Amino acid sequence: MQHNQTFADWAEITPTARIDRDSHGWRAKCLQRLVRLNLPVPPVVALPFSTVRSIAQGWQPDTAAILARFAAGQLVSVRPSSENPDWGGPGTILNIGMNDARHAELAAIHGEDAATSLYLRFVHTYAVHVARLDPDLFEDERPCPGALARALAAFAAESDEPFPQDPARQLADVLRSMARAWEGTSARLLRQAKGAPADAGLGLVVQAMALGVAGPDSGAGLVQFVDGVTGRAQVTGRFRTGMQMPDPVGGDGAMYLTRDPRGPSLEDTHPALFAELTRHGAACRARLRDEMQIEFTVQQGRLWVLDATRAPRSSRAAVRIAVQLAEDGVIDEGEAVMRVQPQALAELLHPQVDPRGPRDVVARGIGASPGAARGRIVFTSGAASASAARGESCILVRRETTPEDIRGMHAAHGVLTERGGMTSHAAVIGRGLGLPCVVGASGLRIDTRANTVTAPDGRIFAEGDILTVDGTRGEILAGAVELLEPALDEAFTRLLEWADAVRDIGIRANADTPADARIARDFAAEGIGLCRTEHMFFEEDRLTAMREMIFADTAQDRRGALERLLPMQRADFIRLFDIMQGQPVCIRLFDPPLHEFLPHGREGLRNLADALDKPLSEITRRAEALAEYNPMLGMRGVRLGITIPEIYEMQARAIFEATIEASRKGAPVVPEIMIPLVSARREVELVKARIDAVAAAVRVQRGARFEYRLGVMVETPRAALRAGEIALHCDFLSFGTNDLTQMTYGLSRDDAGRFMSTYVQQGVYPEDPFHTLDVDGVGELLHIAADRGRAARDGLTLSICGEHGGNSESIAFCRAARFDYVSCSPFRVPVARLAAAHLALADRARDAAMGGESPAAR
Amino acid sequence: MQHNQTFADWAEITPTARIDRDSHGWRAKCLQRLVRLNLPVPPVVALPFSTVRSIAQGWQPDTAAILARFAAGQLVSVRPSSENPDWGGPGTILNIGMNDARHAELAAIHGEDAATSLYLRFVHTYAVHVARLDPDLFEDERPCPGALARALAAFAAESDEPFPQDPARQLADVLRSMARAWEGTSARLLRQAKGAPADAGLGLVVQAMALGVAGPDSGAGLVQFVDGVTGRAQVTGRFRTGMQMPDPVGGDGAMYLTRDPRGPSLEDTHPALFAELTRHGAACRARLRDEMQIEFTVQQGRLWVLDATRAPRSSRAAVRIAVQLAEDGVIDEGEAVMRVQPQALAELLHPQVDPRGPRDVVARGIGASPGAARGRIVFTSGAASASAARGESCILVRRETTPEDIRGMHAAHGVLTERGGMTSHAAVIGRGLGLPCVVGASGLRIDTRANTVTAPDGRIFAEGDILTVDGTRGEILAGAVELLEPALDEAFTRLLEWADAVRDIGIRANADTPADARIARDFAAEGIGLCRTEHMFFEEDRLTAMREMIFADTAQDRRGALERLLPMQRADFIRLFDIMQGQPVCIRLFDPPLHEFLPHGREGLRNLADALDKPLSEITRRAEALAEYNPMLGMRGVRLGITIPEIYEMQARAIFEATIEASRKGAPVVPEIMIPLVSARREVELVKARIDAVAAAVRVQRGARFEYRLGVMVETPRAALRAGEIALHCDFLSFGTNDLTQMTYGLSRDDAGRFMSTYVQQGVYPEDPFHTLDVDGVGELLHIAADRGRAARDGLTLSICGEHGGNSESIAFCRAARFDYVSCSPFRVPVARLAAAHLALADRARDAAMGGESPAAR
Repeated sequence: MQHNQTFADWAEITPTARIDRDSHGWRAKCLQRLVRLNLPVPPVVALPFSTVRSIAQGWQPDTAAILARFAAGQLVSVRPSSENPDWGGPGTILNIGMNDARHAELAAIHGEDAATSLYLRFVHTYAVHVARLDPDLFEDERPCPGALARALAAFAAESDEPFPQDPARQLADVLRSMARAWEGTSARLLRQAKGAPADAGLGLVVQAMALGVAGPDSGAGLVQFVDGVTGRAQVTGRFRTGMQMPDPVGGDGAMYLTRDPRGPSLEDTHPALFAELTRHGAACRARLRDEMQIEFTVQQGRLWVLDATRAPRSSRAAVRIAVQLAEDGVIDEGEAVMRVQPQALAELLHPQVDPRGPRDVVARGIGASPGAARGRIVFTSGAASASAARGESCILVRRETTPEDIRGMHAAHGVLTERGGMTSHAAVIGRGLGLPCVVGASGLRIDTRANTVTAPDGRIFAEGDILTVDGTRGEILAGAVELLEPALDEAFTRLLEWADAVRDIGIRANADTPADARIARDFAAEGIGLCRTEHMFFEEDRLTAMREMIFADTAQDRRGALERLLPMQRADFIRLFDIMQGQPVCIRLFDPPLHEFLPHGREGLRNLADALDKPLSEITRRAEALAEYNPMLGMRGVRLGITIPEIYEMQARAIFEATIEASRKGAPVVPEIMIPLVSARREVELVKARIDAVAAAVRVQRGARFEYRLGVMVETPRAALRAGEIALHCDFLSFGTNDLTQMTYGLSRDDAGRFMSTYVQQGVYPEDPFHTLDVDGVGELLHIAADRGRAARDGLTLSICGEHGGNSESIAFCRAARFDYVSCSPFRVPVARLAAAHLALADRARDAAMGGESPAAR
Repeated sequence: MQHNQTFADWAEITPTARIDRDSHGWRAKCLQRLVRLNLPVPPVVALPFSTVRSIAQGWQPDTAAILARFAAGQLVSVRPSSENPDWGGPGTILNIGMNDARHAELAAIHGEDAATSLYLRFVHTYAVHVARLDPDLFEDERPCPGALARALAAFAAESDEPFPQDPARQLADVLRSMARAWEGTSARLLRQAKGAPADAGLGLVVQAMALGVAGPDSGAGLVQFVDGVTGRAQVTGRFRTGMQMPDPVGGDGAMYLTRDPRGPSLEDTHPALFAELTRHGAACRARLRDEMQIEFTVQQGRLWVLDATRAPRSSRAAVRIAVQLAEDGVIDEGEAVMRVQPQALAELLHPQVDPRGPRDVVARGIGASPGAARGRIVFTSGAASASAARGESCILVRRETTPEDIRGMHAAHGVLTERGGMTSHAAVIGRGLGLPCVVGASGLRIDTRANTVTAPDGRIFAEGDILTVDGTRGEILAGAVELLEPALDEAFTRLLEWADAVRDIGIRANADTPADARIARDFAAEGIGLCRTEHMFFEEDRLTAMREMIFADTAQDRRGALERLLPMQRADFIRLFDIMQGQPVCIRLFDPPLHEFLPHGREGLRNLADALDKPLSEITRRAEALAEYNPMLGMRGVRLGITIPEIYEMQARAIFEATIEASRKGAPVVPEIMIPLVSARREVELVKARIDAVAAAVRVQRGARFEYRLGVMVETPRAALRAGEIALHCDFLSFGTNDLTQMTYGLSRDDAGRFMSTYVQQGVYPEDPFHTLDVDGVGELLHIAADRGRAARDGLTLSICGEHGGNSESIAFCRAARFDYVSCSPFRVPVARLAAAHLALADRARDAAMGGESPAAR
């Protein structure tokens, strides 16, 4: 029984021992792999989770039996081995087995200093981490015999017993202290915060130590074979003599690995050893199927490999490493795709603040749109445009942005706002434009009269001063900081090609402008899923015509103003169609309330009265009459289309004329026209009848043929519920999940910021539903609408557009519901393509597992 | 074949003839009933719908055969008999059979004048309505031989043939012209507008005419046995000698029926005849089971009954007649209940403009809250309060009202606004207060500086001038018009008691104030279904404390302000509980956004800064920070309850302390507490935990026991979808259909007015969904929520509150969905009680019919 128990209690790691990650931990498993590769791993014994748990509860292992597995007098280390390296664990303890006798032996062979250094360090470690004595009593001293005597005396005085001399007793104490540390409350909370389950186990490995202190041909080091920032092949790392274990930070006395003009290198001093290390690295890469970082020690010229872990890497390095491994045949393309987290791609798309440079943080806010930009501060959209005209880069600083700031945002290189959250106007538009953006920097004080911004520490920045916006981390840095350029290189392109090969749901982009469309095209979006036409009306000459239309007294006058807009709209659409080269373009008809097009303040209204040659009192009265209590729920979308039909008629004509024009030059275009804010079937019938009539008229007038597809943007709960009858009149339904979320929750995106953080913190909502699709509520409406729409009409195209479109969770939802595509902002397209591929591959792996086959070996 | 066909073509009305309302029309059926009662009905032949349709298509009936059924030389009339008297039809044509020969005969017997009068009138009618000649040629002249000759000559000249002398030809022409008139487009459109189906048929009756012109003992009259305005028993009507048919308007030479000091009466001059008439009236009432209006003629002292139709009656008369018939055992109580339309009750609840008086209409708008009121014009809430303090009645005139006008509306007797629709603030609150209200009187121009209102015709009314608001008809009348007082008499009470006996769904009232609660109690509401607590905070002293609470810097300061509100809230609830005498009271926790409590404009903010002793800049800044883009979708309801928990804690404490107090004095109170604007289960859990804690604390502090019920106001689509998990934490769900409609449609009630009329006119929405519950969309969410809620929790109470609650359609929906009660504004309670009874009785009748039994005879 005792013997059996002992057999299960621990095992020497051999190629055939039963060592599993979920019983012995990642380090034990990794060491076994190295053993199987015939790497020179020092002898090592693994204690499984169950044993460590028993030790924590008071059971005493037969440590003498464990030590009997090693050479007599062998010093050993104990290191933690939980299931996941991220979960932490107690620190490694080295040099177990040091005692007065071993000290004397080693001093005789390697000298007094080396031996004393080892013993002194062990006494310190044992006293503090095992015996839990006051660390102040064991302050580091230079290793000398006097220091050792003082330490041993201090230990005896504090613990009422001499320092333990029996290695078995030492090992038992170390194991017990590490086992108990794992069970401590704070350790448990820390690892649970990183995703560990409540009953996560700790394994321990007891490993023979090479003596890195044994003279100039001894030491310890760390090596990896790629650059952690770029992912390109390059040997990096450090070696230091006189060390028992590699020091990850490097430090004094470190030696280069490869030949280097700055100092001595391992390649120079021990070429055979360096060659052996390189061989081991290649073996690890080939057999462990990843770029590894190897810990090694050298004892009197002999190499020992202590451990090999996944080489740390930046996002861009991760992409290159995965692609290179696949191209070398080490992993297959699917696995390369799975090796890169979709979210990580966002970092590659924009310039980033170089992590190696200094950071003078002026203020913190919410990183609402990733990437970094530097430029001179401007406080108005006009100043931003002027700056862009001079070819200078600028940062637009505003309390908050409004639709009138669109032009300024186009001109700026970065945006900083005092107010707002992840779903504020600045954040949403910033992400759409791929513009680095920090919002909600509430510590800032913006003085719009003096044109200054005051930091929380009192520093004042004036217009023209230079700031750097770090939209990835949500920080504002003083001055122009060094940036890393985007990494849209061949590795990036290759990885996404592989992703597309397995992806099974379409990815389109939301694109309102030719610039957006070009980005969408560059990122291989399969068309435009949402082109919001209203942004087209904010340009100077158009805004004037819009305002004339709004203040027209008759349908006739309204048509007159719209006729001036027609050629501009047509040109917009021709450009979009040209860029998209025959890919589908889904154009949403005019949506926002008309008052968004009116100037603010008395001065603006006076100018407008002058421009329209009408009395100010009339302009003011009509502007007031257009004001709304709840614009989100007011006179907009199809409600405008029904009550002022001339707007949609003009837009339909512009779309059809552009269709004819673009089809003449290139691939035939089949435009998609989408009706916003529908809540009743009859709205669709009425608008469809008018658009059909315009199409018929254009066909006759131009003597041309074209087709188009009509669809509905499902944004109201009622449209979702009535999707069955609505689908009878359309070719597609696209879910506008932003508005649908607003209405399902009764929650305005613009106003939710005031309490959303409280709500998420208190767990009232598990996540901000504007950020992560609410599967339970909004998702049910999507399912209802999809089911009813499909039942009513075969071949109905289904999709979502809006901010949720690019999220992995939303894509998973849409795949499960068999939607045709998701549409997201252009800069989210690569992320969405990769996320969709991950989901498809995960499904395949699950299917394979269910079918009895094992998924591709990990 | 011809004979058979003729047999079906027409029938003499006898007690056993096959005459049906759906084949021969209402008049033919009614006449048969009179024949069956042995009333002296002149012989009459009925032509069914099918015959009249054939005639219109050109088939010629054998009119000689019809006339052969009458005495030789008998004059006849033809009158329309469609299925429903409201659907109209061609006018009656009298004296068919008059020709030169008959003229000579009658002249010999009754004198030249009488005979000429009959012939001349027939020629005129025939020329204009049958031969379609120009009416100008046949202008009324005094009957004299010269006029007759001129008329006959004009006829011959215009129609190229002499006036037809053959009675059979005359009758054939009359029948054809009436049959064709019914098929005319305008006649069809008119009757379809009144609900007639497209294929509605016309029957015709040919009736022998008594000679009312046959001297002083001949004439025609109309009698009814109740007062049409009050419904009390009273013989009313007119009799006039020398008339062929009764003239409904009376006119010169009319005689009273009963003895009257103002002139001769039938009772005086022909007492036997009057007695016979009275007997017939009683027979009709008993056997036709309603109060009838009898048309009669007298020929040389002999009485003929031409027709008996339902006596016209006001709403209040309808109630009294139905109750009296039931009390006399003529009909049963259920039928009495069914005889009164629920909507008609609304007229009884409020003073009405006396229909008999003159109407000087100043402006028209939407009658948003029924009833009439007269008073001096005031333009501000302050002036309304001052006016009420002086004991003067006033009419509050505003562009539109806001929550701050509540006090003014309480003080006013009527409200008039320039803007808004049926669901504007003024309309909703006006209906809630039972305050006559006209909104959307957009022809008016209100000058708030001069304090005048200008009518569309240019008349100017200044502050202090007197107007009358007719909220029933949506009109504003100049001066103080005569009013009829409300008719909440014993007949009204009795009818509603009978309604309650069959009603099978609860009716509660929405009541915010003691005055509301008293009305609810008087109208026998079964509790309060919605008590909105926020109105309680608009009174002067409370508003100050509210504002202090809003601007408090710490939870501590907030609690301080709320502690001052606590005793006031407690007193509010004690009063409500006292009035409701143990009936359930459902109190909705604080709901509106805080900015509703802030003053408007710079002056108001300055005063507030003074009052709170804070700098104006801070007040302004914080007021701006509280402003919202979409207040409807913002920081209100349970979102306030979660983020500023002190408010709900204060309210819960006030409710519980009031519960203890009120239970000590009277019936034990079990308050119901309702959480507004819920969108997630966790909101309910958090608020419930806090309220439970307050309840526990109050129980300990006061050493008292009490229970309470907690529920959720389902106002967001998400709450409806997630009702299953929400119901786990509550005792009841009450649907706030106003907000639920807003969110399901994505449509703000306050902003919808701008296009709702267009939408309803174009049939985009069949009805204003804020007025009539949208069964397809909102209704589905109600069903989903009810099903899931019930499945999750046995005995869950379900109800709707809000504007829809009192509508018959909504009650029908709620009965079908087995809801426990509906709650509506106090003045809708009687209407709702009656409507619910109607639905229950209709169900019983249908069940009886399905079971093979016939429902109670009609």
